[in-house]
Amino acid sequence: MVSSTDVNGTAVYSPSGDQLGEIDHLMIDKQSGQIAYAVMTFGGFLGIGSDEHPLPWKKLSFDTGLAGFVTDVTQEQLTGAPQRSEGWFDDRDYARRNYDYYGVSPYWI
Amino acid sequence: MVSSTDVNGTAVYSPSGDQLGEIDHLMIDKQSGQIAYAVMTFGGFLGIGSDEHPLPWKKLSFDTGLAGFVTDVTQEQLTGAPQRSEGWFDDRDYARRNYDYYGVSPYWI
Repeated sequence: MVSSTDVNGTAVYSPSGDQLGEIDHLMIDKQSGQIAYAVMTFGGFLGIGSDEHPLPWKKLSFDTGLAGFVTDVTQEQLTGAPQRSEGWFDDRDYARRNYDYYGVSPYWI
Repeated sequence: MVSSTDVNGTAVYSPSGDQLGEIDHLMIDKQSGQIAYAVMTFGGFLGIGSDEHPLPWKKLSFDTGLAGFVTDVTQEQLTGAPQRSEGWFDDRDYARRNYDYYGVSPYWI
């Protein structure tokens, strides 16, 4: 188990230990209580100019030693991810494109 | 969808609109990305002396008007809930007792 207080602002690393960015917040499916996306940010300064990149939760694993998340998603993959629609977090079509892009089976089925 | 940033510290109300307490944090099942518990606190002063009460996520619904959660769980139910074991959040037996007590079907099946 991991506490939500240990998630917001937590660093995300590549498998080789380079910091890619951090988790800004999680988007939670209200009905099911399932985490739909971990929203990652990188670049920018103090959060200004940094873009948000929603990732399926299953692309992240928590590394207790690093006290952070590890992902095999690359920065190129993040920047090349499907464009977010307006209201993306409630858009099932966007969810399909996102999960398909990252090769994760849908959480909603 | 609801953001994790809108959850930590968010008030919890009874169906009649009385504030019962607040959500301190969520406990997330790492593998599945499922929220196992919303940990509620009430009483105490500035969090000191307040006790933590883990609730199944499905006992809460988010009320946009109140900008808070609503639950039909009473304060008596919260205080009468099964005792938490040490390391309760990783204890499946405790999870069974807790979910059974609140009448919620297990998230892990």
